[in-house]
Amino acid sequence: MNERHIIDHIAALTDQKDARLIKGIGDDCAVVAKDGRLVWLLTMDTLIEGVHFDPAFHPPEKLGRKAVSVNVSDIGAMGGRPVFALLAVGMPKTFDPSWFQAFAKGLADGCREYGCLLIGGDTVASPQGFNCTLTVIGEAMTDRVIFRSGARPGDIVWVSGQLGLAAAGLELLRRQLDGAGDGFGPLLAKHLDPIARVDLGRILSESGVVHAMMDLSDGLATDLAHLCKQSGVGARIAAWDLPIPPVLIEAARLTGADPEQWAVSGGEDYELLFTAPAEAHDRLLELGRQCGLALTPIGAVVEGEGVVLLKRRDDGAYEECEIAYRGFDHFREQAGG
Amino acid sequence: MNERHIIDHIAALTDQKDARLIKGIGDDCAVVAKDGRLVWLLTMDTLIEGVHFDPAFHPPEKLGRKAVSVNVSDIGAMGGRPVFALLAVGMPKTFDPSWFQAFAKGLADGCREYGCLLIGGDTVASPQGFNCTLTVIGEAMTDRVIFRSGARPGDIVWVSGQLGLAAAGLELLRRQLDGAGDGFGPLLAKHLDPIARVDLGRILSESGVVHAMMDLSDGLATDLAHLCKQSGVGARIAAWDLPIPPVLIEAARLTGADPEQWAVSGGEDYELLFTAPAEAHDRLLELGRQCGLALTPIGAVVEGEGVVLLKRRDDGAYEECEIAYRGFDHFREQAGG
Repeated sequence: MNERHIIDHIAALTDQKDARLIKGIGDDCAVVAKDGRLVWLLTMDTLIEGVHFDPAFHPPEKLGRKAVSVNVSDIGAMGGRPVFALLAVGMPKTFDPSWFQAFAKGLADGCREYGCLLIGGDTVASPQGFNCTLTVIGEAMTDRVIFRSGARPGDIVWVSGQLGLAAAGLELLRRQLDGAGDGFGPLLAKHLDPIARVDLGRILSESGVVHAMMDLSDGLATDLAHLCKQSGVGARIAAWDLPIPPVLIEAARLTGADPEQWAVSGGEDYELLFTAPAEAHDRLLELGRQCGLALTPIGAVVEGEGVVLLKRRDDGAYEECEIAYRGFDHFREQAGG
Repeated sequence: MNERHIIDHIAALTDQKDARLIKGIGDDCAVVAKDGRLVWLLTMDTLIEGVHFDPAFHPPEKLGRKAVSVNVSDIGAMGGRPVFALLAVGMPKTFDPSWFQAFAKGLADGCREYGCLLIGGDTVASPQGFNCTLTVIGEAMTDRVIFRSGARPGDIVWVSGQLGLAAAGLELLRRQLDGAGDGFGPLLAKHLDPIARVDLGRILSESGVVHAMMDLSDGLATDLAHLCKQSGVGARIAAWDLPIPPVLIEAARLTGADPEQWAVSGGEDYELLFTAPAEAHDRLLELGRQCGLALTPIGAVVEGEGVVLLKRRDDGAYEECEIAYRGFDHFREQAGG
């Protein structure tokens, strides 16, 4: 049994029929009818010491805000806005109160910045290390929710921002190279304190032109494979169109990594991945400008299944690589490991 | 900073004003307006290996159901019924698939038995041991929700079922004395696989006679102190009225424990603690009979603050002990410790 299948496995053992349930397992959030006009979006994410963060280089205040951002990102990816949060904290007996105060401040700041209230939770002792699980509840207009399942052949695949930054930032921090280059700040920030694209998500949902959307948490290869599977389609991505900034190439050179690999398989960018018909091109660029974010078309939705990365070889020929599900997997990659 | 204050502390750093929020931190569940007629109840609880359960003697199937029951108990304690659940699981890399299959079956069985659907979640690697956090969402009639804060001087304090059984069962299991007595089954079951009093909670809420209610998760002394604090009252409990069955006394004799101590401070009984005016006495006994559960009046709500246990000394005089917050605290008591 694989990490991705555990929740599916349990859900398959339970009934999934309820008139109020619009979408259960399989999207960024569960979607539940609130009243005719509004739905509730529910999501839950865990951060575990030694897996999702290394306390040696993760400032607790940034970690607290990240705990909120990674959940809010799921709400934004369906076009909703966060409203309430519940927090479960596992604290080691020997926890440092000043560390925890800073974590608490970051978490509270994150709640305030995204506009959600902390309304409950649970605190327990943790035998080893710190961990926290947040449940965030969001709200959206019933007819504006964007699912993973709406992609259609002929759609263009888009991403917001740039790809691979969080993976590069983590690698620099692990190798203590975070001070090695002038421009590495955005890479480090992307791992330590990512920003959920909740405003962009809402604007895209209100635009009515986006067919399918999700956030990039496990890496483009894995996340696009999820989106394609839910939509019953495939996708072809152009490697030369991936938004890779020069600073990522510089960080890759310094660490001996492949920047394209980071962009394709690096997790935790928390950018938005979405599809829209080709005629929405100019409109989408304009919406991105409104949010101060670059939106980049990187490929196309096709009939069939799977995710293919097209590369140009040095001899001018094209190479096709199947990349579905080759992403960041917490059971393989561990922080500090 | 104390376990109990961590969530309060973070919540105090965030705004708590929202027209939809009826009750935030401080009750069994957060209460949020759904529409005029219904509210949503939200609760979250974590089970951690080595703290809340010992895999040496906790069968995984029972643990899975317990994960649901401890959350559903919070819903029942406000008069609601569970509707949806989200699950976060932390799995060690070396997990045993057959152990997990049994856990998953128990969890799914629990969801089905209580009538809630698993609609989402997150699975992550856990460096040490297994842990799981459940968020359960319940529903209740807006005008029937019972809060902790409604107790009034003159009310009678009631509990359902019997007290101290879970603490006794845990002690027997720890000492491998679970096979030592014929009648220990109910004690062991109370720790391994407690039943949430969700039907009783709903019947009590519908009766309209209950002023305040909560579930007994941290022990009578601690939980009644919470209820009193939220209500701005005190309570006086009669030790001789505590529902302590003979089998608890037998288990205490065998392990050298004090049965009254178990009844007062033992956590995890997941019975209901509630207050109602004296004139509701016969009505409440009848409602208990409808559910097949003994309901026992154990004391009175008084003006002031604090929780006092009255004991009869051998010389016939009465002794008063302040017992508020002397309960099960996960930062002091650890399974196997």
